[in-house]
Amino acid sequence: MSIAFKIEATSGEARAGRLITPHGEVETPVFMPVGTLASVKGVSQDVLEELGVQILLGNTYHLYLRPGIEQIRKLGGLHRFMAWPRAILTDSGGFQVFSLNELRKVTEEGVTFRSHLDGSSHFFSPESAMEAQIGLGADIIMAFDECTEYPADAERVRQSMELTLRWAERSKKCFEEHKEEVPWGAHCGSREADKSVRPTRADQTQALFGIVQGGMDAALRKESAERTIEIGFPGYAIGGLSVGEPRALTREIVESTVAHLPADRPRYLMGVGTPEEIVEYAGLGIDMMDCVLPTRAARHGLLFTSEGKVSIKQARYAGDEGPLDAKCGCRVCSRYSRAYLRHLYASNEVLAQVLNTVHNLSFYLDTMRAVRHSIALGRGARFL
Amino acid sequence: MSIAFKIEATSGEARAGRLITPHGEVETPVFMPVGTLASVKGVSQDVLEELGVQILLGNTYHLYLRPGIEQIRKLGGLHRFMAWPRAILTDSGGFQVFSLNELRKVTEEGVTFRSHLDGSSHFFSPESAMEAQIGLGADIIMAFDECTEYPADAERVRQSMELTLRWAERSKKCFEEHKEEVPWGAHCGSREADKSVRPTRADQTQALFGIVQGGMDAALRKESAERTIEIGFPGYAIGGLSVGEPRALTREIVESTVAHLPADRPRYLMGVGTPEEIVEYAGLGIDMMDCVLPTRAARHGLLFTSEGKVSIKQARYAGDEGPLDAKCGCRVCSRYSRAYLRHLYASNEVLAQVLNTVHNLSFYLDTMRAVRHSIALGRGARFL
Repeated sequence: MSIAFKIEATSGEARAGRLITPHGEVETPVFMPVGTLASVKGVSQDVLEELGVQILLGNTYHLYLRPGIEQIRKLGGLHRFMAWPRAILTDSGGFQVFSLNELRKVTEEGVTFRSHLDGSSHFFSPESAMEAQIGLGADIIMAFDECTEYPADAERVRQSMELTLRWAERSKKCFEEHKEEVPWGAHCGSREADKSVRPTRADQTQALFGIVQGGMDAALRKESAERTIEIGFPGYAIGGLSVGEPRALTREIVESTVAHLPADRPRYLMGVGTPEEIVEYAGLGIDMMDCVLPTRAARHGLLFTSEGKVSIKQARYAGDEGPLDAKCGCRVCSRYSRAYLRHLYASNEVLAQVLNTVHNLSFYLDTMRAVRHSIALGRGARFL
Repeated sequence: MSIAFKIEATSGEARAGRLITPHGEVETPVFMPVGTLASVKGVSQDVLEELGVQILLGNTYHLYLRPGIEQIRKLGGLHRFMAWPRAILTDSGGFQVFSLNELRKVTEEGVTFRSHLDGSSHFFSPESAMEAQIGLGADIIMAFDECTEYPADAERVRQSMELTLRWAERSKKCFEEHKEEVPWGAHCGSREADKSVRPTRADQTQALFGIVQGGMDAALRKESAERTIEIGFPGYAIGGLSVGEPRALTREIVESTVAHLPADRPRYLMGVGTPEEIVEYAGLGIDMMDCVLPTRAARHGLLFTSEGKVSIKQARYAGDEGPLDAKCGCRVCSRYSRAYLRHLYASNEVLAQVLNTVHNLSFYLDTMRAVRHSIALGRGARFL
């Protein structure tokens, strides 16, 4: 028993449902905030709970470097380490390593790369990525894949896709052999201290998702989907998008790939997107998404509102007494003025990052809430 | 009508009471967190409320530079600008300017100084400090004084004290002439938007406190106190301490100065101290204190606990599952482990600053709560 997925409403290609994980339920379609180093930068876990976050994403590569997998495993896993009782998903480290560009070398066995922190040499393979993710103990973990660069020629895309398929098999094999080693598993015994972050049933394990690659080639995407499904996973991700290609192409590939994914399994589109895009992808039948955009943009003073983007650093807001977004009910919009947010940003106050991040996440979560409601009403995935 | 001060219990020299300001009541002895630029660095106002903060300190010098007094005045004053409905005290800018060292020049008229931000030249006088503080609209504002450097010879200390006395008269005269101009005053009309931050009675004005100087000379302190009282203020501060002198000397001067201050007026000791020191000064009859120590130390990973100081950056905490302070009930200690706090600090995560600041402020406020309780029980000012 790892996860269960229930579709409760459909409208066109869009679906609204419920993902039941060892650490609670997640209403889908869902946007997952990114907590790279076991923290959504600047935001305390109780505020995330209040925002209604039901699942967070952690980055295996970063946590592997700091504080280290073994440290987190010994402390009972990521939930307990960061005092987050709800669901977590970790990536495999593949995409992060891919982002290192010049610092990595890919072989059949795995990837050798240099740390962005100190240049030290490390090696990730499907097996070590499983070991790391089992040690972290997220509810949902990802197969180790190669994210194909863009642009890439046909031969390169096929090669890369085949490698990802072989790595998917190795990931699954290794996971099946070691899944009982999850730090909150039945064998761990009960600890008084972390009752709040233990799964409801002691026999639960993590869920390993497969990743579809295939570049920007619809036929290869179809083949990758079919062969990944053949290996068999409780959920499927679409990787290798949002890597520099035009947005129309992203949409085209998402649409054609989704058609080859089983309707009864959750579909996770990795690394997207703007508020408009996440609504659009939900409309195409995507159930899960993640992106650093709302949190990273917040740190640069770029805020999402019902009336479009606001660059809060602009002098025009210095005397603006209105809320950031009059239609937003978040704790930032209901208390502070644009003038104050502008002052905090212009003065380099840490509270600027805190408040901006809270608002942007609130906006993303509200957007997904509206999308779910709209699907339930049979109106497709759109802003209400 | 500006403020009222009621003493509700005494024990030895210590007093526990209530300071009634236009923006709410403040239980004394009180520790006032410093919100230099209209923000306690990293902590949202709702968290400050939850911590039980009843009065905040703002720095006139910093706010004068960013976002500027006129900007805040136009927006209805500091309470409204920063969405803080409870009491605020502003300093006069004198101490900040004093801290600029090489960048300032003092004359009878006032102080010419250069901005620490861009080197631009500015001038503060008793009159401009009153204008600035009336524009900011804090509940309690401070006379413009010269903070005498340490060490200083007898002649220099007297000269400086005399200057502060002349400036106190000018401060009071200017304040009396302009106090109706406070941005939340009766003349401002009612604005729907800021009901929550308006004083309960429209005829209320700010309270101007005088500042006792006199260096480390008990006789001059006595003279400064008597002549400042002669000018007449609703509260008195002891300035010019914590400027590098030994702690035993600070205590001696505080003790001897307090003896010359009227028992029925609030006594504010500026710029102190450690948890032990604030308890000690409360025991000497001090009612109000402020210091950047808890917030600044938090940013450097130095945390105050019931078992002493903890430098959370130390590797020894990397695997420590216990709370920062087992006796502390704050939202940090009740949720997170030392291991997690250490990880956040070591990884340079912004949440480290947020959580560390919340804990340190909580510890200071709890300390003062315990002191008030102890005084009420007739046990003097001490930790319970």
